[in-house]
Amino acid sequence: MAIQFELLQQEGAARRGRLTTPHAVVETPVFMPVGTQATVKSLTWPEVAGTGARLLLANTYHLYLRPGAETVAALGGLHRFSGWEGGFLTDSGGFQVFSLAGLRQIDDDGVRFQSHQDGSFHRFTPEVAVAVQEQLGADIMMCFDDVAGYDSPPTRFREAMLRSAAWAARCRAAQRTAQALFGIVQGGFDPALRRESAARTVELDLPGYALGGLSVGEPKEVFLETLTYAPALLPAERPRYLMGVGWPEDIVAGVAAGIDLFDCVLPTRLGRTTTAVTSTGRVNLRNARWAQADEPLDAACDCACCQHHSKAYLRHLANTSEILGIRLLTLHNVHFYQRLLQQIRAALEAGRFAAWAADFTSRGVRWAGPPEGAPAARGGPQTP
Amino acid sequence: MAIQFELLQQEGAARRGRLTTPHAVVETPVFMPVGTQATVKSLTWPEVAGTGARLLLANTYHLYLRPGAETVAALGGLHRFSGWEGGFLTDSGGFQVFSLAGLRQIDDDGVRFQSHQDGSFHRFTPEVAVAVQEQLGADIMMCFDDVAGYDSPPTRFREAMLRSAAWAARCRAAQRTAQALFGIVQGGFDPALRRESAARTVELDLPGYALGGLSVGEPKEVFLETLTYAPALLPAERPRYLMGVGWPEDIVAGVAAGIDLFDCVLPTRLGRTTTAVTSTGRVNLRNARWAQADEPLDAACDCACCQHHSKAYLRHLANTSEILGIRLLTLHNVHFYQRLLQQIRAALEAGRFAAWAADFTSRGVRWAGPPEGAPAARGGPQTP
Repeated sequence: MAIQFELLQQEGAARRGRLTTPHAVVETPVFMPVGTQATVKSLTWPEVAGTGARLLLANTYHLYLRPGAETVAALGGLHRFSGWEGGFLTDSGGFQVFSLAGLRQIDDDGVRFQSHQDGSFHRFTPEVAVAVQEQLGADIMMCFDDVAGYDSPPTRFREAMLRSAAWAARCRAAQRTAQALFGIVQGGFDPALRRESAARTVELDLPGYALGGLSVGEPKEVFLETLTYAPALLPAERPRYLMGVGWPEDIVAGVAAGIDLFDCVLPTRLGRTTTAVTSTGRVNLRNARWAQADEPLDAACDCACCQHHSKAYLRHLANTSEILGIRLLTLHNVHFYQRLLQQIRAALEAGRFAAWAADFTSRGVRWAGPPEGAPAARGGPQTP
Repeated sequence: MAIQFELLQQEGAARRGRLTTPHAVVETPVFMPVGTQATVKSLTWPEVAGTGARLLLANTYHLYLRPGAETVAALGGLHRFSGWEGGFLTDSGGFQVFSLAGLRQIDDDGVRFQSHQDGSFHRFTPEVAVAVQEQLGADIMMCFDDVAGYDSPPTRFREAMLRSAAWAARCRAAQRTAQALFGIVQGGFDPALRRESAARTVELDLPGYALGGLSVGEPKEVFLETLTYAPALLPAERPRYLMGVGWPEDIVAGVAAGIDLFDCVLPTRLGRTTTAVTSTGRVNLRNARWAQADEPLDAACDCACCQHHSKAYLRHLANTSEILGIRLLTLHNVHFYQRLLQQIRAALEAGRFAAWAADFTSRGVRWAGPPEGAPAARGGPQTP
């Protein structure tokens, strides 16, 4: 098998593990920064590695369009092309394609869609999604799935679930490489559908499983309720991946529910919109209150941004739309997420994750919610 | 005196020197990267310092508007505010203000102008320009001058020259700090006017002098002709600064003519427009010919961009408008300019600058000119 997963420790449902891929030894629970275009937006690889990140998500849909999977393959695959020496996971393109409302038609065979870039027509099937991901050559690839939004009619959730299970079987049959192929469990917000999806997907005996179809517009309580039963539907000995999540509090909830892998565009996207995720909550650097704030962004943080610059300088960079501001806030945010997961892993190792999580919650810091807290913004779409 | 300038070696008109400021020991001839908003666009200070740069230009006009000179002063001045530990030179704001065609009115007392940001009204006089630069606190500040464009009527060149000389005297009288105040010689493209300007300015006994009013739209041959006589009008024992210049070939010509300091937005601006300055000429990374070019941008370059990434990856980043592409090209370009000046200084030290420059020219590499070679683009406006 192309990957190995070792469960090192458990506390309740929460798990401390180690995922070994061809390019990385990944301590779990882990947060994967998103590198849509084979770059974690605005950062160099040494900076990304310096935050502790070892596994990144890259987006198949975007790389398929530009520079093209053949080009990446001709240049030696994602690793050699980009220069990132750690692990890559590629999504299947499904989420992006299904987000192209009005530009796509789904049937049981696959999806026909128009590029958001140039309007050109393309067709993704499970077989195409696997072939493209094989050309990209990530450590881990994902099955092509059908995703239903929160406001879909009940029949649509069942349709997407059955189609995703059938497509997972086709993905597995189409696979020609030794890359790890993860299944994706759908089923929306109905425990019975989730159970059926898990049964159909797990019988394919894949090396890892994801919960898909979350962060699609559902209220926070519906998301949290799903976490009470869905992770346990996945085999304990395989890594469990919660796609597109999320805010720090969501990740803590996910770990408590038994999730091992997370990814989200939030740290990078917020960094590009002058917003920092700090130990005291969300900070918008455009705010005039920071104009003369001669203090670090986050006194609890040891990243280069917080060590070398004041909020006043960051506010100036935000206010003048300087690229350095984007860089510094992105670096801080990615570093913040990596440090959060390090703290979670340390608590698990010490057998005091429950106490750590209780303390984390009792501090009353919330990152999601107003002023940017529309439900859909929790996990955010998977395009950074 | 706040600065010291030592002439170490000469070869013909070319000079090898050392400029010592409160924050930097600067080996000359030197190229100053432009840090308009107290940031060299897209780069961190360790990256800037890593290229060898020790002296930067910051723009008074921009910093006066945002975050405001009072704010910079309240935060300890440009150095403490930004975190740059090397030297800063601030321009006077004159060039930017005079570039605001239609938004400014000049009289003998000063200039009334509207902000290009929010349309608010402001007034700069020599006294204001000095006071603002004192609040910014750079190592070197520049006299407020009046700049005539290449297409101005002859009377305008004389007016701007006389006004600049009168304003220089007012700047000197207004100065309250120990910062070095450099004079600016105007006079357009008429040797007699230049001579008169130099005489009026040099009699103020300032610690350094600049040639202003070049890179204002004149053809290359007019620029080069000015270099044949204008630098020699400045005292040999003081540093000579050629403002807003330029392309690599212009800098070599400037050094040969006896110039010590240069600044230009080209390396940073070109980096933001997917263009690299390389040992073989200008390279536009958006060009499809680089789509599968598995080779470094510049095989002769030891910067992090050329050491770690292929043209194909840089082309992908340019094509997808990724910030990392801007960063890597800017870093390369700034590094290229610093390395060029290192080579020039080494040639001067070895007493073989003339041979080096002849070889440089004989290689036939031109950086200016088509496809981006409109005359005004040679030095570029001083706003990066």
